[in-house]
Amino acid sequence: MSKVNIIGQALPNMPWENRPEGVTTPVWRHSANPIIDRNPVKGIARIFNSAVVPYEDGYMGVFRAETINGRPHLHLGKSKDGLKWEIEEEAIVFTDDNGQPYRPNYAYDPRVVKVEETYYIIWCIDFYGAALGFAKTEDFKTFTRLENPFLPFNRNGVLFPKKKDGKFLMLSRPSDSGHTPFGDIFLSESPDLVYWGKHRHVMSKGGQGWWQSVKIGGGPAPIETSEGWLMFYHGVTGTCNGFVYSMGAVILDKEEPSKVKYRSSTFVLTPETWYEERGFVNNVIFPCATLQDADTGRIAIYYGAADSYVGVAYTDVNEIVEYIKNTHEDIADDHEIGLI
Amino acid sequence: MSKVNIIGQALPNMPWENRPEGVTTPVWRHSANPIIDRNPVKGIARIFNSAVVPYEDGYMGVFRAETINGRPHLHLGKSKDGLKWEIEEEAIVFTDDNGQPYRPNYAYDPRVVKVEETYYIIWCIDFYGAALGFAKTEDFKTFTRLENPFLPFNRNGVLFPKKKDGKFLMLSRPSDSGHTPFGDIFLSESPDLVYWGKHRHVMSKGGQGWWQSVKIGGGPAPIETSEGWLMFYHGVTGTCNGFVYSMGAVILDKEEPSKVKYRSSTFVLTPETWYEERGFVNNVIFPCATLQDADTGRIAIYYGAADSYVGVAYTDVNEIVEYIKNTHEDIADDHEIGLI
Repeated sequence: MSKVNIIGQALPNMPWENRPEGVTTPVWRHSANPIIDRNPVKGIARIFNSAVVPYEDGYMGVFRAETINGRPHLHLGKSKDGLKWEIEEEAIVFTDDNGQPYRPNYAYDPRVVKVEETYYIIWCIDFYGAALGFAKTEDFKTFTRLENPFLPFNRNGVLFPKKKDGKFLMLSRPSDSGHTPFGDIFLSESPDLVYWGKHRHVMSKGGQGWWQSVKIGGGPAPIETSEGWLMFYHGVTGTCNGFVYSMGAVILDKEEPSKVKYRSSTFVLTPETWYEERGFVNNVIFPCATLQDADTGRIAIYYGAADSYVGVAYTDVNEIVEYIKNTHEDIADDHEIGLI
Repeated sequence: MSKVNIIGQALPNMPWENRPEGVTTPVWRHSANPIIDRNPVKGIARIFNSAVVPYEDGYMGVFRAETINGRPHLHLGKSKDGLKWEIEEEAIVFTDDNGQPYRPNYAYDPRVVKVEETYYIIWCIDFYGAALGFAKTEDFKTFTRLENPFLPFNRNGVLFPKKKDGKFLMLSRPSDSGHTPFGDIFLSESPDLVYWGKHRHVMSKGGQGWWQSVKIGGGPAPIETSEGWLMFYHGVTGTCNGFVYSMGAVILDKEEPSKVKYRSSTFVLTPETWYEERGFVNNVIFPCATLQDADTGRIAIYYGAADSYVGVAYTDVNEIVEYIKNTHEDIADDHEIGLI
């Protein structure tokens, strides 16, 4: 019997495995990870940091596909069970403002979020530096490019799956271009997906632990629960040999989603397996999507592993919410913004 | 007889000096510069990078005042002739969203632009890093804070003095925080000053010359002329001993202000005098405002000098437009944004 409820649809056919015996972490890995291995499609060297959604009687995904010339593009994929994916050889072609076909010269780290009857894709685009690209589709056949929501430099744009007071909400992580050594999560709202404003700071890197000391960024779309918005995100620490990306979890206030209600002081998953530790970029867990079943409280988290693979991990809404509450740390947000 | 016209008001009492004999540069300095010297007001060590506007039968200004504890705040000033300024000892207090008095914990590099009957102040604020603060006043007695237009990190926000198709237009220079080593000028629009979008790239640092090789940023509000929007800006180069800030000039397309029509390949003013070369930050000319007289085509440019003084320089609309056209360089804007 759930104490915490997921507010949303039932999804009985979603991927699921019970917690393996002996595993005590709040999130556990799919036994047959990685679900997408290297060289999965002709001309594509690696797929990772990708997003999936329920669609019709199966699943659709938008994948970060690193081609064998080393540039990332967005490729569509479909699946019956959410685990075995058929991924298209050609990158998604969007229709731009002028009705012309358009393919970004590079595109990475997509998120896909359904709001009302439309699926929105947010990814990292080249807009004189890293910025957020934005598009929509209703059928995964035609894709319409929308205005870039923000000025550069920005990444990790995540739309909320539900409007609030008639406004769309988007998380993002403004920073500089390149392999940036800083970044917090902000929230912005829009009445029309063209103009954005009322920007608010949501949460900072930092805290007592060091696993999220360098930067943080949104991941999957927040999951509506009876406790608030459950959000998985990535937290990055620095070492003498580079960054390490772990997965964190937080609950945002339902009424005021720019407010953190509870935030786990620990990671909930960190690179430990061969496919997370080693690859094109070592030591990366980068969550981009979830599937969840409101009836059972089951959550499957899709994450990029070592910029080389796609992995799946599982948790239960009661367990993860309890874990976050039990490990809650109030990371001071006492930024001085004005006197008087 | 003017060939190029300033579209705007007559301002017969504006500061003016004819070009001194022997000076051949397109912009020339006021003979009694700096017009604001060090320690101009009790508790204020330096005033620079400040903005002035015509108001009633004289002028109002919003000044970057560096207090003797080393923090910048915005102070109001008034003047009969635009040259001798009475500056208030206390910083401007804004009214925030909740009707509470608010003074930013720091504030710098203000611009003041009149659109219709309202004066808007844009400055650099602390929003978890450098970002644009925004406020309005109609009487220079009460100041209402508006929503920050953009996410961090951003500086050099400049509003156009006229709406286009019912939309406000703002230039800005997204970058990172701190003494950033990069930055281009972008244009954004807003229907309501709350939500902003349709972001466009306007112009890049760079070109054949080196004076604007590191970064560029908007300065005074663009001046409407029969040739397009005349805009002065700052361009920065790097040396072994730090940055050097010069003034550049460009004409933006009237119908599509994100398009550069002509851009001078040379600076139009560069640090050469003692008050520009030496000060708290050596070698800085930082233009923030102009006054202009539509009847005569006279333009006075207010600029910060060496982060220590306020200087004034003059030019004539015909001379500067001709200079920009004659020295025009087409700085390639051939950024690859999409294939197909």
